[in-house]
Amino acid sequence: MPAERTREHAAPVAAARRRRLRADRARQLADLLRHQARTTGFPGGVLPLEGRIGADFGVSRNTVRQALDLLRTEGLVERQPGVGTVLVAEKYPHGLDRLQGLAETLHEHGRVTNEVRTAGPVPAPAPVARRLELPERSDVLCIERLRRLNGLPLSLDLTYVPMDIGAGLLDCDLEHNDVFRLIERLTGQALGSAGITLEAVNADAHSAAVLEAPRGAAVLMLERLTHLCDGRPVDLEFIRFRGDRITMSGLLHRSH
Amino acid sequence: MPAERTREHAAPVAAARRRRLRADRARQLADLLRHQARTTGFPGGVLPLEGRIGADFGVSRNTVRQALDLLRTEGLVERQPGVGTVLVAEKYPHGLDRLQGLAETLHEHGRVTNEVRTAGPVPAPAPVARRLELPERSDVLCIERLRRLNGLPLSLDLTYVPMDIGAGLLDCDLEHNDVFRLIERLTGQALGSAGITLEAVNADAHSAAVLEAPRGAAVLMLERLTHLCDGRPVDLEFIRFRGDRITMSGLLHRSH
Repeated sequence: MPAERTREHAAPVAAARRRRLRADRARQLADLLRHQARTTGFPGGVLPLEGRIGADFGVSRNTVRQALDLLRTEGLVERQPGVGTVLVAEKYPHGLDRLQGLAETLHEHGRVTNEVRTAGPVPAPAPVARRLELPERSDVLCIERLRRLNGLPLSLDLTYVPMDIGAGLLDCDLEHNDVFRLIERLTGQALGSAGITLEAVNADAHSAAVLEAPRGAAVLMLERLTHLCDGRPVDLEFIRFRGDRITMSGLLHRSH
Repeated sequence: MPAERTREHAAPVAAARRRRLRADRARQLADLLRHQARTTGFPGGVLPLEGRIGADFGVSRNTVRQALDLLRTEGLVERQPGVGTVLVAEKYPHGLDRLQGLAETLHEHGRVTNEVRTAGPVPAPAPVARRLELPERSDVLCIERLRRLNGLPLSLDLTYVPMDIGAGLLDCDLEHNDVFRLIERLTGQALGSAGITLEAVNADAHSAAVLEAPRGAAVLMLERLTHLCDGRPVDLEFIRFRGDRITMSGLLHRSH
């Protein structure tokens, strides 16, 4: 990040410029610390002292404080008297390279359980019917689940499945299984591919309450239409991940 | 989405349950309308009348109103007297299937311009040096750009490039070119692959001001380490996309 500038005369414009520069540097430092928190981590989960961070990154103590304030506001760190600045939140990596259910992708991190909020047939709204290639108003199974990892709310998933497969799902243990696995078991066919769309949205009051997050919290929203190996679309999902608990990682190539 | 339930006795518990059900249905309807806005769109950019939407989706007028309120809060629609509910925001699709610069990926949607906020050599902080495989504290080029599409702020990008390539970048027109293209031109080598991580975060006050978004607005944060064809890491980026202006789309496969 840019080195500290020499102190200018305290004219208002220069002061505003200094504040802007410090805010820029604080954000840039916060980005690097956030990355380190998520990858190598910090020994014992405790960040280095402010002076040490300042020296390592070539920035002033005030810039370090401002960066740590940003991470505190995000809920990533807390200041503990006598200990220092400690990591308090863990983010879990969800792969973008392969189509996997939540329990599959997070199996190293703990146990995924699903609180089934809704499960039953509904007439397919036109856009759902169209994407699942079903006649309009034909029944689809609609499932809404609050998904937890080790008890902590991770995501709120709304799933639509054609009724010929969905009827079988209603007899399955939806609490302890990914829908992906169950669909493969019921159809005797592997899943093929899925078109996904990712967005960042602010949680509405109700979703926030269900996810036990603050109102307006940033949510990673995933829309996913999954097909069986034979190409048939069988699973349309709208998933709201808590932004403070999930990252998505993958590898992109320049040429196809 | 689940069909409307029959009206229960107005006991407080039943009333609370009805409110919860309606909130769930409103969110589910909002998800479908949001998808339609982004894909097929609505004729003339105007949503159908509330009664029509209610009939199409099998939900009550109150549920429709609540869903439209959610979309209004997101800044996606507005109510215009005498016209109805109209789409007011456009979201642009950024591909997740191929490694592309912003101007490349959005060329159908308009002109990307870059406001260069910072461009100069800085001593590489340890995590930057490590990821770019450079000796610690060796100089890297640090560029910060506010990127606009047709004049509207889309993203705030912080880029670190090794100085042997970065020195050449300083002589290039950074305002009208993707850094990707410039690196390929300067090195005479195509880019290879990039490791990416996506997160949803709430914008801090300063980033929000730069992006001309409300404080706390949901931001899609992309971290990307890009390599040349020969495997050398040459471009480390931290990109904050305005959540209300960008979606990321791709295709995932079940097996490798």
